[in-house]
Amino acid sequence: MSENSLVTNAVGRTVPTLINNVPSVPFKGVGKHRPTGRKHSIVIPSCADYPEDGNKLVPSLKEALIKAGLKDGMTISTHHHFRNGDLIANQIFDIAAELGVKGLVWAPSASFPCHEPIIGHLESGVVHHIEGSMNGALGRYCSEGKMAGLGVLRSHGGRYQAIQDGELHIDIAVIAAPAADAFGNANGLYGETACGSLGFALADSEYADRVIVVTDNLQPFPCIPWQIQGNNVDYTVVVDKVGIPEKIVSGTTQVTRSPDRLFLAEMTARFCEEAGLIREGFSFQAGAGGTSLSIGIYFAELLKKNGLRSRFARGGSNKYLVEMLEQGLTEYILDGQTFDLEGVRSLRENPNHVVTSPFTSYNYHGKGNFASMIDVVILGATEVDLDFNANVVTHSDGYLLHGIGGWQNCLAAKCVILPLPLFRGRVPVIRDAVTTICGPGEMIDVIVTERGIAINPLRQDLLDAVKHSSLPVKSIEELKTEADRICGKPAQPILGDEIVAAVKWVDGTVIDAVRKVIT
Amino acid sequence: MSENSLVTNAVGRTVPTLINNVPSVPFKGVGKHRPTGRKHSIVIPSCADYPEDGNKLVPSLKEALIKAGLKDGMTISTHHHFRNGDLIANQIFDIAAELGVKGLVWAPSASFPCHEPIIGHLESGVVHHIEGSMNGALGRYCSEGKMAGLGVLRSHGGRYQAIQDGELHIDIAVIAAPAADAFGNANGLYGETACGSLGFALADSEYADRVIVVTDNLQPFPCIPWQIQGNNVDYTVVVDKVGIPEKIVSGTTQVTRSPDRLFLAEMTARFCEEAGLIREGFSFQAGAGGTSLSIGIYFAELLKKNGLRSRFARGGSNKYLVEMLEQGLTEYILDGQTFDLEGVRSLRENPNHVVTSPFTSYNYHGKGNFASMIDVVILGATEVDLDFNANVVTHSDGYLLHGIGGWQNCLAAKCVILPLPLFRGRVPVIRDAVTTICGPGEMIDVIVTERGIAINPLRQDLLDAVKHSSLPVKSIEELKTEADRICGKPAQPILGDEIVAAVKWVDGTVIDAVRKVIT
Repeated sequence: MSENSLVTNAVGRTVPTLINNVPSVPFKGVGKHRPTGRKHSIVIPSCADYPEDGNKLVPSLKEALIKAGLKDGMTISTHHHFRNGDLIANQIFDIAAELGVKGLVWAPSASFPCHEPIIGHLESGVVHHIEGSMNGALGRYCSEGKMAGLGVLRSHGGRYQAIQDGELHIDIAVIAAPAADAFGNANGLYGETACGSLGFALADSEYADRVIVVTDNLQPFPCIPWQIQGNNVDYTVVVDKVGIPEKIVSGTTQVTRSPDRLFLAEMTARFCEEAGLIREGFSFQAGAGGTSLSIGIYFAELLKKNGLRSRFARGGSNKYLVEMLEQGLTEYILDGQTFDLEGVRSLRENPNHVVTSPFTSYNYHGKGNFASMIDVVILGATEVDLDFNANVVTHSDGYLLHGIGGWQNCLAAKCVILPLPLFRGRVPVIRDAVTTICGPGEMIDVIVTERGIAINPLRQDLLDAVKHSSLPVKSIEELKTEADRICGKPAQPILGDEIVAAVKWVDGTVIDAVRKVIT
Repeated sequence: MSENSLVTNAVGRTVPTLINNVPSVPFKGVGKHRPTGRKHSIVIPSCADYPEDGNKLVPSLKEALIKAGLKDGMTISTHHHFRNGDLIANQIFDIAAELGVKGLVWAPSASFPCHEPIIGHLESGVVHHIEGSMNGALGRYCSEGKMAGLGVLRSHGGRYQAIQDGELHIDIAVIAAPAADAFGNANGLYGETACGSLGFALADSEYADRVIVVTDNLQPFPCIPWQIQGNNVDYTVVVDKVGIPEKIVSGTTQVTRSPDRLFLAEMTARFCEEAGLIREGFSFQAGAGGTSLSIGIYFAELLKKNGLRSRFARGGSNKYLVEMLEQGLTEYILDGQTFDLEGVRSLRENPNHVVTSPFTSYNYHGKGNFASMIDVVILGATEVDLDFNANVVTHSDGYLLHGIGGWQNCLAAKCVILPLPLFRGRVPVIRDAVTTICGPGEMIDVIVTERGIAINPLRQDLLDAVKHSSLPVKSIEELKTEADRICGKPAQPILGDEIVAAVKWVDGTVIDAVRKVIT
């Protein structure tokens, strides 16, 4: 890693001003950074250079990469709609290795345990570093300071913003698709690897120099709907298998059976009811985890009980949201990714189940986006601190083990609630200071724990709303004291000075840096 | 008009190299001009500058224009999906006049007789010139050399290309919408002024500096589907009425009853059948005129008779195409604009009736487009010449009375057929040289007239295919001789040297110039 100037940003974190030799702006505060310049744009193409019959098929991914001009130092992107069932990303770098290409940047919209083989390519120098979330083994590898470049973590919206603004320039985007035609029109709705939306690849298709669509389900033109537009695609490739279906979407969605989590879910739903958040026409977003799923179910019950209807629910969709839609408890699902087969079916069949993208939902450098219009958002976190700052990427031992997803973007919602256990395996969740700040406390409104609910003092309206309720409202300090009493003062992680990854805010500034774990 | 250098282009026409003080490239031949540079892009916006609740409503169009920074010399765009029922475009320039703004450029995707009042604004200097098709009175005004600047005529695809490439920079786009929400999501499917698609406004929404959505049918967020994405919109305005429904779409589509036209239609369909063009999975596009409608009906009969199915039909959609879709005679309608209420209904209800845009269908500076994939295209023309060059914008008296529409773009199809009467009111249609070249003869394959069919000698394959048929195949010279014998040698228009408008080719080059008519 190159020598670097460090500065203290607006949340008091020491961050680099140079990331992989690119100057970066330290976080200035929410809404404080104003972008300059124009959106990135590709070199103007001409139909004269594309086949008149629309057939852009090339015989293999290798040939497509060669035609796309794969060479040392390029940035190659992939999407994560196949989650842990992706079969394409690893192949790209295997091919690069075979061709003797070095120093690539991999810019996935997220990485999964199935991408552990990329470590081999990081070791050999085929891949220089990863710009994108690093779950599990890749995160551990990065945490231990083994990656040649800095990891760069962005939210889904931040990734769109960075690509749109030209901060993250993609040379070649490889978009694996459950259905596509030879022209490059593609969607995630049909075929054995159906995953629902392909929205995470939208920016890649619009802004990459070269775009390759890879499918195992070639349709005659036109492949409809064109979630990815063939007019943005250079080459199409047919392969035997783009993904492992059972690792892409689950056949069923499991609600949590853990009594602790059910208690958190119920408490969260109760809070929303007592605070008057569940109103006719309200909107909400709950994640895909067991607790969030359960909250959705409680919301549905509350709506039914009170004869109310939600205007829209944001997905991650699953069978519970689909049930709400089909029962008329919500008018629309605005869906960014699809977590089970019922979600895929609904997206295919129901015009009120609508595909969204990080552009519509999360891009902070747009003329507005959907995130700030949502009434209630339920999110997770690994840690929060006394200022309500929260962490979603590192554990309290310092290890970088999770991506940001849409988490930072969702903080723009009107009410942000984090239902969290007070401790996990005797490690308390509320800290004096979080290991990594991913979201500034001013945007986090409520922490719901099994031993009480802490409301951000900035939200006097919420404090007033539940003043006369029977809810166990406490200060966050009280909750922390209680946890520390039970668990004892938590051990601090042993971290080196060396920065291994940067965490970007939704506006492209650097909100925190992740440091090497001393093992 | 400024002094200008004139050059002879690749089709032998004398064209200006400077249009309204902007350097322009003369036509170099089909597929010969290669663009340089990058696509245009807007200044990066920030959510910090847009309302968090997504409510972008301002009280009036006037206030929206003021907020958008309306000032002298700006380019203001509108779309023509309301056709002759548009109530918004005139208002924009009335407001500009009221505000004392001068020298505007109006860049409509097309203009209609209802826009005749713009002549007053051209006279007073509020509008400097029009970049877009000029039908009827506006065309006559331009033809007589009365417009301060040069008219610039582009095809639908050429307009997308020009906006995308930054040749046509739009300061403020005003997008009237039959349905919209306060965030700016808009579509043409619902409400009293439902017009089907809003695709002609897509480029405007993506590339204009400021985008205003005007609606008379405000929906709660989200307005679905978002043919125009609110994320590209700056301001929304609610007005009483955006258009006059009966002038937007007709309740019914009328097939021609003219025996001459029916004969042309039948002959065209017969040609397609005999030439083997009507195959399982073939695709076609026929315009909205009476003759074209009838050809569509003949195609449907042929498909039914032979147990065949078309893969897709390109619209302009109407009830006959919708019937084909609903009867399974075509699998998809890929629709650019909607001509009757049945088309609107189908677009709303049938997922196989798909909205397209000039980007998907026509943009020559894309990575391919749909136009070149279509098997058979049926188009009109005002004139053709012995080299099969054709004219769609001027009449033989020199008057500029029509826009190009998608005509130039459609020439990319695999077989382009022009069914034309041999003469109109004793004015022969086949000329030694067309008054204005809109499409190079090498792209036009077949002329079908009531007295014979001329096949372009470049299409030996088609000549061979119908060699043994009973079709009256003649040379174009024979057809011309026959027409001249009946009508006498046609009078030539009296044209001055002064150029009043330029006709762009699909790649942005200048294919011809329109000269002042000496009256």
